[in-house]
Amino acid sequence: MAEVKRGYVRPLDLKQGRIDLTHGSGGRSMVQLISELFAKHLGNEYLGQGNDGAVLPAPTVDGRAGRIVMSTDCHVVSPLFFPGGDIGCLSVHGTINDVAVMGAAPLYLAAGFVLEEGFPLADLARIVESMARAAREAGVPVVTGDTKVVERGKGDGVFITTTGVGVLRDGVELGGSRVRPGDAVIISGSMGDHGVAIMSKRENLSFDAPIESDTAALHGLIADMLATGVDLRCLRDPTRGGLAATLNEIAGQSGVGMMLHEKAIPVKQVVAAACEFLGLDPLYVANEGKLIAICAAADTKRVLAAMRAHPLGREAAVIGEAIADDHHFVQLTTSFGGRRIVDWLAGDQLPRIC
Amino acid sequence: MAEVKRGYVRPLDLKQGRIDLTHGSGGRSMVQLISELFAKHLGNEYLGQGNDGAVLPAPTVDGRAGRIVMSTDCHVVSPLFFPGGDIGCLSVHGTINDVAVMGAAPLYLAAGFVLEEGFPLADLARIVESMARAAREAGVPVVTGDTKVVERGKGDGVFITTTGVGVLRDGVELGGSRVRPGDAVIISGSMGDHGVAIMSKRENLSFDAPIESDTAALHGLIADMLATGVDLRCLRDPTRGGLAATLNEIAGQSGVGMMLHEKAIPVKQVVAAACEFLGLDPLYVANEGKLIAICAAADTKRVLAAMRAHPLGREAAVIGEAIADDHHFVQLTTSFGGRRIVDWLAGDQLPRIC
Repeated sequence: MAEVKRGYVRPLDLKQGRIDLTHGSGGRSMVQLISELFAKHLGNEYLGQGNDGAVLPAPTVDGRAGRIVMSTDCHVVSPLFFPGGDIGCLSVHGTINDVAVMGAAPLYLAAGFVLEEGFPLADLARIVESMARAAREAGVPVVTGDTKVVERGKGDGVFITTTGVGVLRDGVELGGSRVRPGDAVIISGSMGDHGVAIMSKRENLSFDAPIESDTAALHGLIADMLATGVDLRCLRDPTRGGLAATLNEIAGQSGVGMMLHEKAIPVKQVVAAACEFLGLDPLYVANEGKLIAICAAADTKRVLAAMRAHPLGREAAVIGEAIADDHHFVQLTTSFGGRRIVDWLAGDQLPRIC
Repeated sequence: MAEVKRGYVRPLDLKQGRIDLTHGSGGRSMVQLISELFAKHLGNEYLGQGNDGAVLPAPTVDGRAGRIVMSTDCHVVSPLFFPGGDIGCLSVHGTINDVAVMGAAPLYLAAGFVLEEGFPLADLARIVESMARAAREAGVPVVTGDTKVVERGKGDGVFITTTGVGVLRDGVELGGSRVRPGDAVIISGSMGDHGVAIMSKRENLSFDAPIESDTAALHGLIADMLATGVDLRCLRDPTRGGLAATLNEIAGQSGVGMMLHEKAIPVKQVVAAACEFLGLDPLYVANEGKLIAICAAADTKRVLAAMRAHPLGREAAVIGEAIADDHHFVQLTTSFGGRRIVDWLAGDQLPRIC
């Protein structure tokens, strides 16, 4: 029998070390990466089970089995670190928000990492710490995960796919097809911050005032809105493609048009200036901590009040209304009194924004 | 008001077309890709909801709320198409199996795609069709998904991260830490088929007999095993790192050793020959449709009978037993009467095997 040394394994070099292919092999290096980095920061009773999947308590509402909501999001944002956040917290917020806009209380997250050979462990550690902080602050644990490594030049640092599961209370029915003419269109705050923060960093631009991503978890704000008991028609977070894409999608699903009022749409001055410089339209730029809410006109006041009482909804504003329109156009009355159609984005304004 | 043409959009060119950055932009091209390719093949009532997340029936067992199991797996296999399968069906089987080995009935899948600019739409269509077929055959729908596109050279064709949710019956408690000395170690069939199929394709090797991946969904086999009522200690699918990595992991979690018998471990002749040629050890090679089951010695017969009665367990065999060992070594008695330690894989034998 050959003598096998199983004893001492050097700890991960989190200062100078880099990802290599052994970290994805299913062998001891992978186990080490998981225990010394992922489990260390993300650790919780579920992740700690250490099996191929996590066993989780039944999703119940008021003691009874509840419908669940499931959503998944791949994060390929470039650069990985940007003003106001990084791919780590973004991947937590993004998926929590997709679950929350369905009206569900987010319960659990799964996280899958595709790492590129040569990626600095120090950067990975920053990202995982940021995920852990975001998950802790949101109260939604990462309960299971996976790590794969691809050869240098076959990836781009790190891609993170997160999947969320939440539980949905009886009677809560939100969806893009529930909007009716006359409904009010509300947004929770300024448009374009995230996308412009990414683009400015990517183009190495600096402005007088800092532009930071708005990345944030919206489930607390949404819970407060649901607690009003108002029949919300639809909630969405206007990420890729921005307000324009999201409203066009809803208009199509509900078979209505939308009439927006440019003056009513909050855009930070520095974001507007950066957009002008970059040739971007803030209505098409991704947000990562903003909410579109659509409700019956009669409920507007109560919804606005609930939103403005929450730190993430202080600047909530009615920006327009759903209208009858067989073409399902989203239109905008401009500050100059004109009118234009806010169409889908045709090309690719902002690749890898989230 | 500018006149906007919204009418005719050319259908996706599924013969000559390629992924470009607009397919990930949140604009109309992305919507088209989703509707003409993903929804077309994977379509079901949940995916068809068309919101940011899918609303799903409560996971119940016998009419009551059940614990859920959640598991996620990134698939970066290279090549994308291989004898016996492709990344599409693999990504369905792999995650179903991770949920099923926890003893849960898989209910729902989420799928996230990271596509490289320039990837042929025809290849993507083959992959999505294969996913759809695998999901249909397994009876586990893909209920939600996401698509991102990265620039040429920043990815490698397509990576697919799938996440599964299943529901777990009361009383079913499987886990790597439940193994006791004396327990029987059973495998459902031959070792090494998947990894050797991938490596042979990658190295352009051909053998007299074809070597095909064993990729398959194991939840049916597992359901039959659970139906026996036997107290199974632990189930695992020996993927990355093969039988060796999986048994070392379980040995460590349970604080036991393992004694395996080389003669008892089924390895197809052609796989053994290919392994010799490629310098691989079949015990370290990934499987994608095989099961390790550990149970009390007294229950072995019933478990074996249930396995052998299922098409995916016909060659099920006892390959060894758990033993008391403070070092938690996995050992092997060789065909020549010797004994060796089957250690963790130290380096990276097989990158991107799944």
